[in-house]
Amino acid sequence: MSTIHTPRRQGKVWLVGFGPGDPELLTCKAHRILGQADVLFYDALVPAAHLAVYPGRKRAVGKRDHTEQAGINTLLLEAAQRGECVARVKIGDPMLFGRGGEELAFLRAHGVAVEVVPGVSAAQAAAAVAEVPLTLRGVAQRLELRTGHGCAAATPERPTVVYYMGAARLAVIAAELLAEGHPLGTPVALIENATRPEQRITHTTLAELPQQTARAPLTLIVGEVVRGISFPGR
Amino acid sequence: MSTIHTPRRQGKVWLVGFGPGDPELLTCKAHRILGQADVLFYDALVPAAHLAVYPGRKRAVGKRDHTEQAGINTLLLEAAQRGECVARVKIGDPMLFGRGGEELAFLRAHGVAVEVVPGVSAAQAAAAVAEVPLTLRGVAQRLELRTGHGCAAATPERPTVVYYMGAARLAVIAAELLAEGHPLGTPVALIENATRPEQRITHTTLAELPQQTARAPLTLIVGEVVRGISFPGR
Repeated sequence: MSTIHTPRRQGKVWLVGFGPGDPELLTCKAHRILGQADVLFYDALVPAAHLAVYPGRKRAVGKRDHTEQAGINTLLLEAAQRGECVARVKIGDPMLFGRGGEELAFLRAHGVAVEVVPGVSAAQAAAAVAEVPLTLRGVAQRLELRTGHGCAAATPERPTVVYYMGAARLAVIAAELLAEGHPLGTPVALIENATRPEQRITHTTLAELPQQTARAPLTLIVGEVVRGISFPGR
Repeated sequence: MSTIHTPRRQGKVWLVGFGPGDPELLTCKAHRILGQADVLFYDALVPAAHLAVYPGRKRAVGKRDHTEQAGINTLLLEAAQRGECVARVKIGDPMLFGRGGEELAFLRAHGVAVEVVPGVSAAQAAAAVAEVPLTLRGVAQRLELRTGHGCAAATPERPTVVYYMGAARLAVIAAELLAEGHPLGTPVALIENATRPEQRITHTTLAELPQQTARAPLTLIVGEVVRGISFPGR
């Protein structure tokens, strides 16, 4: 009798931004993915009551220290390896103070399919309800997002810098960043038409940025995070 | 014959973030509001084809200079004064490089009801599709959002600063900002539980911040933008 090989369903992990708390502030995509997931792993800040509408199994996973993060990584990997559709539900946006980058790097390093579903972040929710614009012509044209958790002890890392609306000014932007002391080798990702059919992603460095051409709408992400998932061991 | 006073429907303007372009990245709330609106005023970057599913009248409004912004303000005001439910559809998030603050200030100054519906911003969409975390432990714990449009000529304004997860460290945060040169009178908004039933908003200054108490999840917005809509003449 020969072994029967049944085709195995391929697992996948969605890193889903839940948004700031109001369930109506989920994106339509997040709502769809949560409805399709076999299992939902959710953070302490996600209001558990709002997950009750989704049919998948729910599993609360706190994360307070590095050990627990490693445990979460393993849970996600095991579920995906079982062929499950896994929703990793994070408050706000997965790529912003959410350790989404760490989970993404770990899963990618283990060959798991991953997709990130962005979400409304607390800064935007706070701006909306407090009616405070985050930028305003003549008052503030830049925004810094920081964590207050351990801010005094923070090492003087360079921030990630994102430019909106810079397609026609790549050389000026490169000059600005170099003048601020960012090294020539700093990695840069150019994302044209993010999430649209014409989407195009280019990787370069600060040294090469002036030679690039890009169409609007363009978003530039500048900094060591651009190398992020090349360092799965981190 | 006496004049008959029929109760007039009260108009309202929703400043709605459309998100980065993919219509599935609208929030469920944005989708609902667009479906209810009598008229949708939309920016050049909003894909017009994706508005076809909504029944209200559509009106494209470019905005390239201050004069045109004044014209948009007037259009919104007139529609609200006619008693209409007005959706002002902005690409990304209304409070982030979107002039939402200016429209909010103008409408408030004219007594119009306004509500802001946050949206996924281009930085988050770019991070999701390029799989670049915007923050990553040990690599970057801060994020700066800038506009590349006219960056070289930008006046050296102070950025708006937003702190996540700072509830237990208000004194440390105040000290950090003062050490960086932010004046004692800098306005600060504390937003606890943004968009949740327990939401609470407190206004203070950098000088008074250490005396405040706040519960997590807390978002702090620091900077002159917090005074934003007290200056309708701007």
